[in-house]
Amino acid sequence: MTETADFPEPRPPKGWLDGADLDLMRAQVPFVYLDVIPVRVDNTGAVTAFGLLLCSGPDDALSRSLVSGRIRYTEHIREALYRLVETDLGPMAFAQLPPTLTPFTVVEYLPDGSTGFCDPRQHAISLGYILPVLGDCTPTTEVLSIDWLAPEVALSSEVAAQMVFGQGELLQRAARHLNLHS
Amino acid sequence: MTETADFPEPRPPKGWLDGADLDLMRAQVPFVYLDVIPVRVDNTGAVTAFGLLLCSGPDDALSRSLVSGRIRYTEHIREALYRLVETDLGPMAFAQLPPTLTPFTVVEYLPDGSTGFCDPRQHAISLGYILPVLGDCTPTTEVLSIDWLAPEVALSSEVAAQMVFGQGELLQRAARHLNLHS
Amino acid sequence: MTETADFPEPRPPKGWLDGADLDLMRAQVPFVYLDVIPVRVDNTGAVTAFGLLLCSGPDDALSRSLVSGRIRYTEHIREALYRLVETDLGPMAFAQLPPTLTPFTVVEYLPDGSTGFCDPRQHAISLGYILPVLGDCTPTTEVLSIDWLAPEVALSSEVAAQMVFGQGELLQRAARHLNLHS
Amino acid sequence: MTETADFPEPRPPKGWLDGADLDLMRAQVPFVYLDVIPVRVDNTGAVTAFGLLLCSGPDDALSRSLVSGRIRYTEHIREALYRLVETDLGPMAFAQLPPTLTPFTVVEYLPDGSTGFCDPRQHAISLGYILPVLGDCTPTTEVLSIDWLAPEVALSSEVAAQMVFGQGELLQRAARHLNLHS
Repeated sequence: MTETADFPEPRPPKGWLDGADLDLMRAQVPFVYLDVIPVRVDNTGAVTAFGLLLCSGPDDALSRSLVSGRIRYTEHIREALYRLVETDLGPMAFAQLPPTLTPFTVVEYLPDGSTGFCDPRQHAISLGYILPVLGDCTPTTEVLSIDWLAPEVALSSEVAAQMVFGQGELLQRAARHLNLHS
Repeated sequence: MTETADFPEPRPPKGWLDGADLDLMRAQVPFVYLDVIPVRVDNTGAVTAFGLLLCSGPDDALSRSLVSGRIRYTEHIREALYRLVETDLGPMAFAQLPPTLTPFTVVEYLPDGSTGFCDPRQHAISLGYILPVLGDCTPTTEVLSIDWLAPEVALSSEVAAQMVFGQGELLQRAARHLNLHS
Repeated sequence: MTETADFPEPRPPKGWLDGADLDLMRAQVPFVYLDVIPVRVDNTGAVTAFGLLLCSGPDDALSRSLVSGRIRYTEHIREALYRLVETDLGPMAFAQLPPTLTPFTVVEYLPDGSTGFCDPRQHAISLGYILPVLGDCTPTTEVLSIDWLAPEVALSSEVAAQMVFGQGELLQRAARHLNLHS
Repeated sequence: MTETADFPEPRPPKGWLDGADLDLMRAQVPFVYLDVIPVRVDNTGAVTAFGLLLCSGPDDALSRSLVSGRIRYTEHIREALYRLVETDLGPMAFAQLPPTLTPFTVVEYLPDGSTGFCDPRQHAISLGYILPVLGDCTPTTEVLSIDWLAPEVALSSEVAAQMVFGQGELLQRAARHLNLHS
């Protein structure tokens, strides 16, 4: 989960918090997150590739992640989806935001990892969406590249080992929801 | 439900049936159908209009319907979706076929209408999908026009009275699945 | 939404907050809630009644609500569901908790009511579940009664007007998801 | 898929077909099926075991299957679910039929197995449901036993190899929908 709301700005928009406040609250209430799985589809809607963000971690190890982030105070879910997708995939991605807000799955990230998803920073409850992306993606400065992996690659144990927070399992859930199999 | 598979052709493709055989089977087994609800969406994915086909019935009364049709023998669901959408909306519709085949609802059409959906010709079990349409629609010769109605119009009792087979109720289901309200 | 976590206890369990801290956070981050719709079903699973809590508000006006509450810090969704249902329906309700955690809908409660759901106290994002209840319900002291209303009554405009936070619309969503119609 | 409708009876109820007619239609139209996955759940709704039918095939090889069967002409989906579950699990199973008819997945069985699910007899489109079973199961004469397997066993490659028609993959879909992992 990339978190772009931690750093104060000169004039923070409504719903932004500075780092100290956010850390305090992260230790006391669950946060609401969105997890977006970018996909390429053919003209019948069948998924041909999953889009994963390649990032360089603090110890220079490479890791892969999905488009993720928290919903801010008073922000509508659709606004948050739009913001997160535009931030991580760039303005020319033409991601097809879902007509329904019912997620295909719900992910529980816990500091102790007792659900299989571990986020040492916080307890986050995340709504999962699968988004067809029609255009070209432009990674932000923090992301090395956005890679489109065929399902058999994206679902391999090699890629699962690179995914942050246990998100490889989220790809497995998506694949089965999409009637793909590993 | 428009049914385009009833009429024999010189060399019918696999899965086609001639009218007499089809009528015989229609009295003995349930048929599998697809119901597609075309929608226009804004850039956050929110639905702004429903697309309804305006047709002229045998008694010249106007009626409205969705994009519907049966799945043929050995046809994959995605192939049937693609065929039905292209037939009814034309080649420039750019309908976004769903990445998942899990329908948002299932409709039971029965000759006696005991489920609220009545089809005097047959027992049909139909998978319902909501499809964002990005391009321009071209109606077939049997369809007068494809009209984009704002949700409050599409969900009105006036439009419900024009819908064939009780499909106004299917629009209500779709609207609630989309978090719209009438 | 009944909120049972606002009041400090001698030794609060993990995840509890005292009232002042909670109010502070409620003005800064969205909270995660669960909305449970208790239903009675017949032996084929068809819903025959909706269970609504009848409460007396601060001005003695009667209001109706669903089983609702927030997820606490580090609490699993299933634990929260179990706790909320047992608290509001009593130990003999035999509510059938869902095998899947994928909600049938997501509700956005906002202080300004811009989504149709209004909670002046907070921004809450709520996962909606429909739970068959097999046993007898025992209301808590804050609830006058738990009433089982036939769908046509529960979905009437009279009952909708009694529902808190705009939750009548949530019943409409549930009804359509259940293939009921008003 | 067990098929109990193939054999004529002295006075067949409405919707039954004799074997010859059924075979003829099976070669011309897709049939509508239901696939039911019986599960045991704990008091929070979490799945603890999958229920699989152990059968003896024509060549005395053991195979495992789910509760499956076709929907008959004019039969409601709920009636078919109830009939199939009672036939395969017996009268004391207390299976909790789902309040919603929206399936968690759709399975396409094809004679050529091009979807990963192969049924040499027919093209079947099947709605998948997960049903908590509270009581005791009684196998029919054609079934050797109904076995409750822990998720890690049910999802193993050994059990997958015993499943008919490729239904091991359907268990994988169910497991991911239930937030279990193999």
